[in-house]
Amino acid sequence: MKYHFKEEITPYTGSELVSHWIYKNTGILGDAVVAFTGPCNVELSSMVDLEDVLNEDSIYSENMLHFIVEIFGIPLEEGVLIQRLFTSILQDRINAELGELKIKRMGDDLFYQDTKKLSVSICTVSPTSILIHTGLNIDPEGAPVEAAGLTTHLGIENVQAFASSCMRLLAEEWADTKRSTYKVRAVV
Amino acid sequence: MKYHFKEEITPYTGSELVSHWIYKNTGILGDAVVAFTGPCNVELSSMVDLEDVLNEDSIYSENMLHFIVEIFGIPLEEGVLIQRLFTSILQDRINAELGELKIKRMGDDLFYQDTKKLSVSICTVSPTSILIHTGLNIDPEGAPVEAAGLTTHLGIENVQAFASSCMRLLAEEWADTKRSTYKVRAVV
Amino acid sequence: MKYHFKEEITPYTGSELVSHWIYKNTGILGDAVVAFTGPCNVELSSMVDLEDVLNEDSIYSENMLHFIVEIFGIPLEEGVLIQRLFTSILQDRINAELGELKIKRMGDDLFYQDTKKLSVSICTVSPTSILIHTGLNIDPEGAPVEAAGLTTHLGIENVQAFASSCMRLLAEEWADTKRSTYKVRAVV
Amino acid sequence: MKYHFKEEITPYTGSELVSHWIYKNTGILGDAVVAFTGPCNVELSSMVDLEDVLNEDSIYSENMLHFIVEIFGIPLEEGVLIQRLFTSILQDRINAELGELKIKRMGDDLFYQDTKKLSVSICTVSPTSILIHTGLNIDPEGAPVEAAGLTTHLGIENVQAFASSCMRLLAEEWADTKRSTYKVRAVV
Amino acid sequence: MKYHFKEEITPYTGSELVSHWIYKNTGILGDAVVAFTGPCNVELSSMVDLEDVLNEDSIYSENMLHFIVEIFGIPLEEGVLIQRLFTSILQDRINAELGELKIKRMGDDLFYQDTKKLSVSICTVSPTSILIHTGLNIDPEGAPVEAAGLTTHLGIENVQAFASSCMRLLAEEWADTKRSTYKVRAVV
Amino acid sequence: MKYHFKEEITPYTGSELVSHWIYKNTGILGDAVVAFTGPCNVELSSMVDLEDVLNEDSIYSENMLHFIVEIFGIPLEEGVLIQRLFTSILQDRINAELGELKIKRMGDDLFYQDTKKLSVSICTVSPTSILIHTGLNIDPEGAPVEAAGLTTHLGIENVQAFASSCMRLLAEEWADTKRSTYKVRAVV
Repeated sequence: MKYHFKEEITPYTGSELVSHWIYKNTGILGDAVVAFTGPCNVELSSMVDLEDVLNEDSIYSENMLHFIVEIFGIPLEEGVLIQRLFTSILQDRINAELGELKIKRMGDDLFYQDTKKLSVSICTVSPTSILIHTGLNIDPEGAPVEAAGLTTHLGIENVQAFASSCMRLLAEEWADTKRSTYKVRAVV
Repeated sequence: MKYHFKEEITPYTGSELVSHWIYKNTGILGDAVVAFTGPCNVELSSMVDLEDVLNEDSIYSENMLHFIVEIFGIPLEEGVLIQRLFTSILQDRINAELGELKIKRMGDDLFYQDTKKLSVSICTVSPTSILIHTGLNIDPEGAPVEAAGLTTHLGIENVQAFASSCMRLLAEEWADTKRSTYKVRAVV
Repeated sequence: MKYHFKEEITPYTGSELVSHWIYKNTGILGDAVVAFTGPCNVELSSMVDLEDVLNEDSIYSENMLHFIVEIFGIPLEEGVLIQRLFTSILQDRINAELGELKIKRMGDDLFYQDTKKLSVSICTVSPTSILIHTGLNIDPEGAPVEAAGLTTHLGIENVQAFASSCMRLLAEEWADTKRSTYKVRAVV
Repeated sequence: MKYHFKEEITPYTGSELVSHWIYKNTGILGDAVVAFTGPCNVELSSMVDLEDVLNEDSIYSENMLHFIVEIFGIPLEEGVLIQRLFTSILQDRINAELGELKIKRMGDDLFYQDTKKLSVSICTVSPTSILIHTGLNIDPEGAPVEAAGLTTHLGIENVQAFASSCMRLLAEEWADTKRSTYKVRAVV
Repeated sequence: MKYHFKEEITPYTGSELVSHWIYKNTGILGDAVVAFTGPCNVELSSMVDLEDVLNEDSIYSENMLHFIVEIFGIPLEEGVLIQRLFTSILQDRINAELGELKIKRMGDDLFYQDTKKLSVSICTVSPTSILIHTGLNIDPEGAPVEAAGLTTHLGIENVQAFASSCMRLLAEEWADTKRSTYKVRAVV
Repeated sequence: MKYHFKEEITPYTGSELVSHWIYKNTGILGDAVVAFTGPCNVELSSMVDLEDVLNEDSIYSENMLHFIVEIFGIPLEEGVLIQRLFTSILQDRINAELGELKIKRMGDDLFYQDTKKLSVSICTVSPTSILIHTGLNIDPEGAPVEAAGLTTHLGIENVQAFASSCMRLLAEEWADTKRSTYKVRAVV
């Protein structure tokens, strides 16, 4: 899995969560994770979480750190597991940065001080790949729920360095997951 | 996924990591996680991690909390992802118990104070299921590497209550993972 | 698999055979079967059976008992097998109701007195699920072929009770199918 | 799927339920169903149904009509669905032969007059195929449960003709199932 | 796999590379390969190779021998392997026709005299099948790159006979591939 | 896919065709192809081709170039396609070496001058991987059928260089196959 921080500020509207968006926008082919920052404004018609659509839960944030992950040739269920493992990597990375136990994971969500929502995340499937979007508030101003921000609440100023270390850890975890399937004797 | 704490002290020798061990030993049929305590002594001939076999790394601990997970009808790669997510659940559960950031996850291993190994874990595949064994030292006395124990180092005395809450969280995570595959619109 | 009888009369036009129709129209998430009654009028542009499209076989019935089944994460071939097993369940249920051997199954079709078509059925696939529509004529008036009706020919008046018992049997068959994969030792 | 009636009387002991038994014993390569008659005596150590093993339910019948089905390259869950569809075919075939509604299917079992067990059946998996054994009592003398026989209770004397028509129907159903996956437009 | 030479001259525009094109245009249902001749003009908006789209590489040839292959129920990766094996079959067939080693395969491309491009090929996936288009220049006049033609450069005049023998070889290779999965004992 | 020429002369007896043989004998983990030279003597009890076992076709050659390929996490059918593509690579490589069209491929066999068998090959499956053995006679002395040898008949003296270029081409083909699945837009 390759990884890349896209330096241009890029709004996330939901239409980015399609197959080959990474290839078309960065030239990177194959399994990859790309990060960028920008506002988040996903209208109902662009949402893939049908529970949110039924509840008319829009997603809005003035500035987020966005991750888009695309992995080819695996089923949705495996994609959801990778999404959650990535959420756990983000949690660990932030806690390590702070040196304190401040972030909790519940499924694919991260919370600061138990109730302030730090993240949004979804995993879906295209005909050839699974796709994950995870967004972390940098500044939660304007979010529709009680929320926290990477910079405003957690003091993480160098968002690019933070993003790159998270992406590297995900790439390593994925490589190591595959490696674990190579070295094991089957049982009866 | 059902879960069960098996109260009898049960040594873990590696021969338990086979399909239907849970069914034959607890009567629970289908996807399940079972926990028990007992010594851990896996001889090279019973090990499924071929890297450990090549390195002649035996596994020994006087008293461990053991988890055996069996999930039917999924491929090994998905099993390894579940193994790692479970490792993350254990890490979170211990850190929450301690109220401090003491446990780190590296792949399928947990460390206390960066270097003391708390766990052993492996995921393999049978013809009908994936199987995970994760063991946490209760008392690491006699372990072949620098190690920490749930009770001796982390002060967790009620191992059964701890195990049950970890198993419940895994069962919820797995149910919620499946749920996430039901509610999402595919993309192009 | 959950099941539900939707009491509102609901026309079936073919556009209902899409992923998450059940979720959006009943709030039931995940594997499910839903039944309702209403006219059936599927225009060629909405048909998924391309053989029917080539033959310009439209589907029409003034009043049908409709079943829509959605099961996530399985391939089309498995969906077709479930469709046929459900057809067999309907056959058995009607024969049992009548106490006589009146209904025959040929593939995914049911016939009364060998030649009167009682049912239409199709199984297709969405990006995340398989989908089955099976319709049983209640009153075959207006059908384009020789046809029989549940109420008009077979005397089944309580269509809802009939539908519910069929759905319950399908849910049990599916649960029992999964159970059968848990309890069996593999062979060489 | 090819089909063949093996004319030699052949005892069924459970050891026949392995991959390539059909190929080695009849020369038929690939997806196939083979029938033969002979006593049935499966000892606990040869049983693949672990529920029966736990309950110490042995299988015994003085003379049975046996079917062995092998299909390559499909998962166990799909095999179980085929097993049940085949059970339904047997049920229909017998009821049609008798012209009466005498046989009921419950999962993979057939009953005569609600309580007399006519069949045993199991589906398992080898590394390359799924395997089904279904046995119908010809004469249930000596069976460990209340049982019925094809010839003794149902008056079917020409067991070979009966077996051949059942096998032909299974082969047609399987071909038609595949055909159904070729002709259908996917939906969103 | 059935095969068929469609005698009408048929332009290839890219819109033919969709599921069930073969069924709708020839009446052949299921796994199949169809050949025809005609001009090739694929505009960027119809191209499925996104690398070509990014590079704005259009595809044009005045007259080509086209093959369209559709195989149901297999993943894209397997489709790409079949595409390359078919490319190898074409290479062998031409070399055998010429009695000389004139054609080289590089991935899914064929070259004459190392540099003259003889073919275009792509493999993609629909919701129910994989689809392959392979086109061989008959007369490369107007091609955007240095190119060779079956008739103009290689002297193959009877294009239909050539096409039919290639299709027969592909059908045999596919049948033999399946056969190879039936006759092999698994190992540990 | 990694590749490696194992310089020690190593007899091939069939027992090498098991999962993780490459890892245990060369330390290479994961998808890999390894080549070595040595006599070939596979007794019936070690053969995985059951057709050969039924025909009592033993395999014997005084000196062969052996390739063992292991690829994890793919089904047998895909393995057989890779086996045949590798056979095609070997054919091309030898023809290129000779500058003449001397070698023909029929399925997984290579022939010199139409009738002299150059190769033996089989593809099978372990619980975690597919495994391919392909052997090319260096000196066919003692072979049970009319045979040709790489060195004796084709004049290829530097067997190691030849093997390494073949393995490199296979590794490139496999990487390029995966790449082809990343860059393609799906169709309807």
